[in-house]
Amino acid sequence: MVREHALRNGIIILEEEACLPITNREVQFGFSTYESLRVVESHPVHLEDHLIRLENSCKGIGLVHPFTHVELTDWVHELIRVDLLDEASVRILLVGGKEPLCFITSSALLTYPANYYALGVGAITYEGERLIPSCKTGNLLLNYMALEKARSSGGFEALLIDRKGQALEGTRSNFFAFRDGKLFTAKDDEVLLGITRDRIIQAAAILEIVVVYEAPLGKDLLKGLYDEAFVSATSMAAMPLSSLDGVAFKAPFDRTNAITALVRSWELED
Amino acid sequence: MVREHALRNGIIILEEEACLPITNREVQFGFSTYESLRVVESHPVHLEDHLIRLENSCKGIGLVHPFTHVELTDWVHELIRVDLLDEASVRILLVGGKEPLCFITSSALLTYPANYYALGVGAITYEGERLIPSCKTGNLLLNYMALEKARSSGGFEALLIDRKGQALEGTRSNFFAFRDGKLFTAKDDEVLLGITRDRIIQAAAILEIVVVYEAPLGKDLLKGLYDEAFVSATSMAAMPLSSLDGVAFKAPFDRTNAITALVRSWELED
Repeated sequence: MVREHALRNGIIILEEEACLPITNREVQFGFSTYESLRVVESHPVHLEDHLIRLENSCKGIGLVHPFTHVELTDWVHELIRVDLLDEASVRILLVGGKEPLCFITSSALLTYPANYYALGVGAITYEGERLIPSCKTGNLLLNYMALEKARSSGGFEALLIDRKGQALEGTRSNFFAFRDGKLFTAKDDEVLLGITRDRIIQAAAILEIVVVYEAPLGKDLLKGLYDEAFVSATSMAAMPLSSLDGVAFKAPFDRTNAITALVRSWELED
Repeated sequence: MVREHALRNGIIILEEEACLPITNREVQFGFSTYESLRVVESHPVHLEDHLIRLENSCKGIGLVHPFTHVELTDWVHELIRVDLLDEASVRILLVGGKEPLCFITSSALLTYPANYYALGVGAITYEGERLIPSCKTGNLLLNYMALEKARSSGGFEALLIDRKGQALEGTRSNFFAFRDGKLFTAKDDEVLLGITRDRIIQAAAILEIVVVYEAPLGKDLLKGLYDEAFVSATSMAAMPLSSLDGVAFKAPFDRTNAITALVRSWELED
């Protein structure tokens, strides 16, 4: 495993050559879409799902590009082959405009210590709404600022609270919370349709947990009306929260970790 | 005038080397601020004001960087000198993070045909709110999409309508409209504090036009309650609107063009 290459429009280049021309208007405006996926045992996990979502993000913002599904699939596999990637995070970036750009890059596989799952991680609330929730785009300043605020107080994630007071999603994750044995999460059209979110919902079904599509209110979470909560993402599976704005959720997080075990068990299946 | 160089952190480079590393997290998140300014007769117009606003944008999003006001001033002048810039648009870009980046690039001076000012330009309304109105950042997807929509119907600008129905500003401009002889525009804290907007307000004072800080409602504009309207920006000065969503404003736009004449007359003063 070397991780020294990247692809630009299907051409293998050195990673240090993977850069965006500053005078490109679409670069300046963040008119771009992206996906991040895991490579495990040289297998790009749920690649098909990521490519479908990438295409949906493009449709959502009107980003037209000439790259086919087959090409993108081949290119991801080519990067895995050229750099002998065993475990890695792979990022696909599409920049729109008259001459669309596609970059595929890799980085070290993003993983978290086991005690994060055992003890949970801290989160904060942050008021703000993503521009087009269903699309994964370069328009990420809100996410960046909210996450910075969480990290500056030692937290792991920030939950975005919308104008109705709902805790919709994290800055790089979906959000779930248990109340009266049921698992609550935002409606499909209010958040990014996480590829891991889908698996979480499947895992919940197997574990006979009822899923309710109703985003928890921030104030109800802070009142302790929910007794277990987690965020989900490709890199995290289901990551339990130990606290929100300092209000504790109590370990053990058995339901959350049972979901993670199931979700991870499906990674090599497709 | 050659326009083939740029500066990266104060170092002269070739323009084609001015690019953003794709693996840089702050590049990925658009954690950046910028300014665009005019160079006229080799003079960077209102440079001091642009640098002050750049610093305010950085403060607004928490972007910390080591570049001083004096350095940035020198670098702009260096680019003008090296490329013998007579007339140009110059862009200053700051990217945050552990190793902040500063790029200064130039492009052809953005100007508009005289008949745009004589006949006015078309605009559309577009529902949406900028994330942090007072800051000029790389978080521009809304602006991009709104402007694309305007252009796809032959329009010149899109006015962003907020959740209260107010026409606050354009995608790259401030917005003003006349009603009963008074000039209406959004409150300071609702929009980008345009450097040209300031000059417009000064020009209005000289022309004995009362300015009212109250953003016109989109529906009132479409009912014809305002009889002249314009957008303002560094590149435009005051650009009269011929129509909004197809509802006409009638030429001649004497008040708007009198404002432009005054605003342009101040360009070489500082």
